[in-house]
Amino acid sequence: MENPVLAEVTRGNVVESRHRGSAIIVDADGGVVFAVGDIERPVFPRSAVKAIQALPLLESGAADHYGLTEPEIALAVSSHSGEPLHAETSLAMLKKAGRDAGCLECGAHWPMNDSVARALAKSGAEPSALNNNCSGKHAGFVCLSCSLDEDPAGYVKQGHAVQRAVRGALEEVTGAEHSSERMGIDGCSIPSYAVPLKALALGFARLGTGHGFGPERAKAAARIRAAAAAHPFMVAGTDRYDTRLMSLLGARAFTKTGAEGVYCAALPELGYGIALKCDDGAGRAAEVALGALIARFLPMDEATQTAFAPLRETVLKNWNGIEVGRIRAPAA
Amino acid sequence: MENPVLAEVTRGNVVESRHRGSAIIVDADGGVVFAVGDIERPVFPRSAVKAIQALPLLESGAADHYGLTEPEIALAVSSHSGEPLHAETSLAMLKKAGRDAGCLECGAHWPMNDSVARALAKSGAEPSALNNNCSGKHAGFVCLSCSLDEDPAGYVKQGHAVQRAVRGALEEVTGAEHSSERMGIDGCSIPSYAVPLKALALGFARLGTGHGFGPERAKAAARIRAAAAAHPFMVAGTDRYDTRLMSLLGARAFTKTGAEGVYCAALPELGYGIALKCDDGAGRAAEVALGALIARFLPMDEATQTAFAPLRETVLKNWNGIEVGRIRAPAA
Repeated sequence: MENPVLAEVTRGNVVESRHRGSAIIVDADGGVVFAVGDIERPVFPRSAVKAIQALPLLESGAADHYGLTEPEIALAVSSHSGEPLHAETSLAMLKKAGRDAGCLECGAHWPMNDSVARALAKSGAEPSALNNNCSGKHAGFVCLSCSLDEDPAGYVKQGHAVQRAVRGALEEVTGAEHSSERMGIDGCSIPSYAVPLKALALGFARLGTGHGFGPERAKAAARIRAAAAAHPFMVAGTDRYDTRLMSLLGARAFTKTGAEGVYCAALPELGYGIALKCDDGAGRAAEVALGALIARFLPMDEATQTAFAPLRETVLKNWNGIEVGRIRAPAA
Repeated sequence: MENPVLAEVTRGNVVESRHRGSAIIVDADGGVVFAVGDIERPVFPRSAVKAIQALPLLESGAADHYGLTEPEIALAVSSHSGEPLHAETSLAMLKKAGRDAGCLECGAHWPMNDSVARALAKSGAEPSALNNNCSGKHAGFVCLSCSLDEDPAGYVKQGHAVQRAVRGALEEVTGAEHSSERMGIDGCSIPSYAVPLKALALGFARLGTGHGFGPERAKAAARIRAAAAAHPFMVAGTDRYDTRLMSLLGARAFTKTGAEGVYCAALPELGYGIALKCDDGAGRAAEVALGALIARFLPMDEATQTAFAPLRETVLKNWNGIEVGRIRAPAA
């Protein structure tokens, strides 16, 4: 089965590249509002489900036990750019649990933001695990582990109490079996489980509404959404799509990118959850495809529509600043 | 029409992403040896045709007039990583024509190689146009312009003598009309013309054999191939695919990457030209797709096959160095 084109890349008058994929919007009862392409094929959500993975941190009471702030909760669901504030906040979270960067098991990498990486290099420093885009999530895992009186060592392993709690939350929220047969290792070394796109959309519809959740889980979901809306920089970083989108729309949309062309989003006022996957794994396409879906379904006044336009269509400029093309959803 | 999958990305036991595209191999008479997908659709070759774009530099006598060395000729057909030797060699070419970096019109960008970019930042320097991956080609354009007694100013424009010569060479070598209707502006600001993939393959079959060329053009093509084979670092850079492949195969393969998932190659001993385009523009897929085609058609002894294996299949490791997946052509 051939998935449709979700985004096309133009140069001059020519479509230079095409990104196929599948996308689905459901309501919190699982009713399908919109669907294109193969929505049954299992997809690794990667980092798009960090908000679900963070539910145990809040539900367990660990976040309150350690007094995690709203920016820290936003960072716990982030794929951040490794900017100084991100790294400092990750460290602050670890310190609240009496730990430090040494117990992070995500691995170190240079900040995703190239100019931040070059500034770090210029300072003579090397990157640490705090600069890893997943360090906030991992700091949350360490807090959860300590709060459970579990040794955090090995918290990335499938059998550790942290990952058992995370997997349980994922299964309950999405309603999909998270099978070891369809498990892969994520960039940050934790398990990722491939599940149908429609289950991810349902999970986000529930996350956005609390529908079908118990009171503790509904409260945790609402706190995560509020934290992201109030601190969109913490969820991603300078010039990043999630940060730009949530800075504009606030609590009206909770969006989260995942590696390999995945996007998940909740539109709480509509009760909708969105999940999409570009077949080829391209983030540039996933972004404009998500933007096109949000613009189609979420009512916006004229000023917001204008401000939203760059989130639906990316202008491509060359090294001399000349516009050479666009990335956009194809005309319907 | 749906193009076939040229490369798949695995994670654990699951295919996480898929890259579709088209590919063609022809002989120097245009006879089709192999073809998959839509080979008629116009494709921007981008940097994959730099060797054809450099033919006027050699044919005109400009390269000899300025005494360009073999490494400099290799750099003139490169998309280099902006490493110090690349930047220095670009500058040396310009100086031979009595010019300097100030007349480059490609724009400046940080070196494509991230660790080189960070080292440059650490030194306190800023990138110049010499670090632009196209600076060698542009230095060649400046040499050509000066040798023609044409002011190099505006050498990137469609109407300049340099671009007229380049377009003429492209049309003659590929046999395809290079239409202003299907023109786009490349990353380095010169025109790029979309032409059918089969014309690009034919161009590379001719480039690899000289078949159908006059003696000056055949000699120029042979000098370019020899320069790339002898100096594969100059064509790309540290850890780059073209450099690795030509370091292994020498003059048996001339390969050149282009932006947006294009690859062109010549296999001179077989008389074959190869052109492929990943629909979605992914370079990671174009590389392994090219590797699979070369491995299928070019005879290799056992040791070469073993050394070639990483050029057919990319091992994906996460931030902790754990193997998490592969990128490879799908099993036939």
